[in-house]
Amino acid sequence: MTEFDAPVPFTSEDYAARMRGVVDQAVAAGLTGAVVTPGPDLVWLTGYQPTAITERLTALVLAADHPPTLLVPRLERPDAEAAEGATAVTFADWTDGTDPYDAVAPLLRGDGSYAISDSAWAMHLLGFQGVLPGSSYRSMTHSLPMLRAVKDANEIGRLAAAGAAADAAYGEIKKVRFAGRKETEVAADLAGLLREFGHSQVDFTVVGSGPNGANPHHEAGGRTIQPGDAVVLDFGGLKHGYGSDTTRTVCVGEPTSEIQEIHDIVRAAQQAGVDAVRVGVACQEIDRAARAVITEAGYGAEFLHRTGHGIGVTTHEPPYMVEGEEQPLVPGMCFSVEPGIYLAGRFGVRIEDIVTVTEDGPRSFNNTDHRLAVVE
Amino acid sequence: MTEFDAPVPFTSEDYAARMRGVVDQAVAAGLTGAVVTPGPDLVWLTGYQPTAITERLTALVLAADHPPTLLVPRLERPDAEAAEGATAVTFADWTDGTDPYDAVAPLLRGDGSYAISDSAWAMHLLGFQGVLPGSSYRSMTHSLPMLRAVKDANEIGRLAAAGAAADAAYGEIKKVRFAGRKETEVAADLAGLLREFGHSQVDFTVVGSGPNGANPHHEAGGRTIQPGDAVVLDFGGLKHGYGSDTTRTVCVGEPTSEIQEIHDIVRAAQQAGVDAVRVGVACQEIDRAARAVITEAGYGAEFLHRTGHGIGVTTHEPPYMVEGEEQPLVPGMCFSVEPGIYLAGRFGVRIEDIVTVTEDGPRSFNNTDHRLAVVE
Repeated sequence: MTEFDAPVPFTSEDYAARMRGVVDQAVAAGLTGAVVTPGPDLVWLTGYQPTAITERLTALVLAADHPPTLLVPRLERPDAEAAEGATAVTFADWTDGTDPYDAVAPLLRGDGSYAISDSAWAMHLLGFQGVLPGSSYRSMTHSLPMLRAVKDANEIGRLAAAGAAADAAYGEIKKVRFAGRKETEVAADLAGLLREFGHSQVDFTVVGSGPNGANPHHEAGGRTIQPGDAVVLDFGGLKHGYGSDTTRTVCVGEPTSEIQEIHDIVRAAQQAGVDAVRVGVACQEIDRAARAVITEAGYGAEFLHRTGHGIGVTTHEPPYMVEGEEQPLVPGMCFSVEPGIYLAGRFGVRIEDIVTVTEDGPRSFNNTDHRLAVVE
Repeated sequence: MTEFDAPVPFTSEDYAARMRGVVDQAVAAGLTGAVVTPGPDLVWLTGYQPTAITERLTALVLAADHPPTLLVPRLERPDAEAAEGATAVTFADWTDGTDPYDAVAPLLRGDGSYAISDSAWAMHLLGFQGVLPGSSYRSMTHSLPMLRAVKDANEIGRLAAAGAAADAAYGEIKKVRFAGRKETEVAADLAGLLREFGHSQVDFTVVGSGPNGANPHHEAGGRTIQPGDAVVLDFGGLKHGYGSDTTRTVCVGEPTSEIQEIHDIVRAAQQAGVDAVRVGVACQEIDRAARAVITEAGYGAEFLHRTGHGIGVTTHEPPYMVEGEEQPLVPGMCFSVEPGIYLAGRFGVRIEDIVTVTEDGPRSFNNTDHRLAVVE
C-alpha cells in the first residue's frame, strides 16, 4: 500500500478475532470478561463510533459464556447496525425512560470481574457497581494493557501510510515562510497539509517557536515567529483510522552554535532510543537509552517527559516507553521515540519518529531527514 | 452587552464563589465534597480546559476541610496556571512515573463520599476506589444535578449574546438558495454564519429537508433540497464560552396548507411552553403545556422527544423539560423550549428558542419571527 491507496477493509472475521482475543486475554488475566464503551477500544473491536459520546449508555460486553453483545440506546441502533463490524456482534437496546443498568445486568455475572474501558464514564461504572454490587472492575490499561498494542499487517500498513503522509506534510511545511508569521498561521498550514495528504482528522499541530518551544505541551499561539528562532513542529492525526505523530525542530535562518549543539544531542538520543528497539527488550530500556545520551551531555533535568507512547487507532496509547514499564517489546508494536531538551524561557528541541518492532529490529514509519533544517 | 461586545471576564471571586457553591451543595446532599475532572464542570469552576483529555489525571478536589485544590500533571501545570480561574485554586502536581492516585489521596478523606464528574474516566474512579477503599462516589448528575443550572448575570449576558448571534445567522441563512443544493451545503453556510457572528465553536447545524426533517436525530446529509420542501434548521455552538441553540422551520416556496397547519400547531405549542415559564413551576409543566397543544390537535404520537434542555457552557445539560422532572424553575435557569411534529417519511416541523426564567416570567434569547418563512 502506498500512502495514497485505499486500505483493505477489515472483515467481520477480523473483528470477531479481536473480540475473541479480548475474552482470551481477560480469562488469562483471571477476569470474567470485558465491558467496552465508546472510544478507541470500541472502534477497534466493532468499527462503531457513535456520532457523539453522551450520557446515554452504549456498552459491548465480552465474556466466554455468551456471544459478543452490543447494548445501545434504541435511537442509535440503526447507526450501530451500520458499523463495519456489526455482523460480528449481537445487538440489544434500551429506551429513554428505562434504566440502562437494568438492561446491562443480564449480560454480566453478579460475581464477575471485568476489564472496563479506561474512558468509560464514571457515571456508568457507578451504575454497574450499583446494580451488581458483587461485580468488580479493572481498567483496561491496568488489566489488559497490551490489548491493542500488537498490530497486524493491515494495521501496520495503515500506520505506515499515515507516517508517509506526515512526512509529505513536513516536506511541504519547510517551504513556507516562518519569520514574521504567527505560530497559529503555520499550524493552520500544517493542518491543511495533513488533510491534503489524506488525513481525515488532525489531532495536533504544535508550533513552538523560541521560548514557546521550551514548553513541551505548548500547541500554537499568537506569538510572531522571529528570525533565529528554533521552532518545534509536532503534528499528527488519523488517516484511514490510524495515527501519525512526528516531530522535527527547524531553525529560522542559520542556527546559533548552541541550538545546533542541543539539536545534535537530541538527534543522538533519538537514534539511541531507536537503536535499542529489539524483540524482548523492556519498554523502559528505550527510555533509558535515549535518556542516557541527554543525561551524559548534562541536560538530564531538561528532558521533561517519557520517551514515547504507542499509536494505533489513537495517537496516544500503550505501550509507553517510560521508566518502570517492564513489558517486553513484541513484533508489531508501534510507538513513538521522541526525546527532547527544553531550556526554559529560551527554546526547545524535540525529534520524534514512529517505529514498529520487527524480528529484524526497528522499522521507522517516519523517514524525513533528522538534521536541523533551516527555514525562512 | 450587545452581541458583538467582548464579555466582562469572570473574576477570581466568581470562580471562588462557584467552588464554594459546590461544597455547600455537596454538604447539603450529605456528601463530603466533589471531585471534578476535565469537561464542562471544570471549565465552569476554574476556566481550565486541558488541550486534550488524556489518561493523565487532572482533578479538582472541593471539600470543606481544605482550599480548592487542582491536581495536574506537572507537564500541564503552566497551562493550568494560565487559566482564568487559576488564582482561585491551590495547585498540586504529579509527574510521569509516579502514581497519580497517591497524589490525590491526601486531598480526599478515607471515609469520605464525593460527587464525581459524570464523564470522569472509569480508570481514575477505580484508582480513587483502590487507594481509598473506604471512600465512596456518586455521579454529579445524580447527586448535584442543578449545579450549573442557575446562571448569574454575566452568564446570562453571554447566553443572550450567543442567542443574538444565532438570530443574526438565521436572518442571513434565509437569503441563501435552498432549492437544488445539498443539505450539507446549507449546513456549511450556517456554520460559517455562526462563526462570522462570533461563535468560536459550532456544535451542530441540522438541515432536515422533506422526509429528513421527520427524523429528529438527522443532522445534514447528501439529499438535494426540493421546491416545496419544509426544512428544519437547528443550529448552535459556543460564543464566549456559552451556548446558542435555535430552530426554525422554513419552506422552499409557498407552503402547502398541510405544512402551514402543522407549523401553526407547533408554533402555538412552543408559545404555550414559553408562556408556562414562571418561578416555582416544575420543569415537567413546560413539557406538559407544549405537549397539550400538540396532543389536542391530534399529533401527540408525532411529538417524539422531550420539550427542552438546559444550556450554558454546554449546549445540552440539566435542567430537562421532561415528564417526571419535578425540579421547580428558579430565576436564572436557561433552557430550550422546542416542541416538534414529525410525520414519518414526509416532513417535520420544530421551533426552538432559548429562554431564561426571571421574576417577571420568561425572557427569550431568540427573537426572530416564528412565522413560517418562505425561502428560495
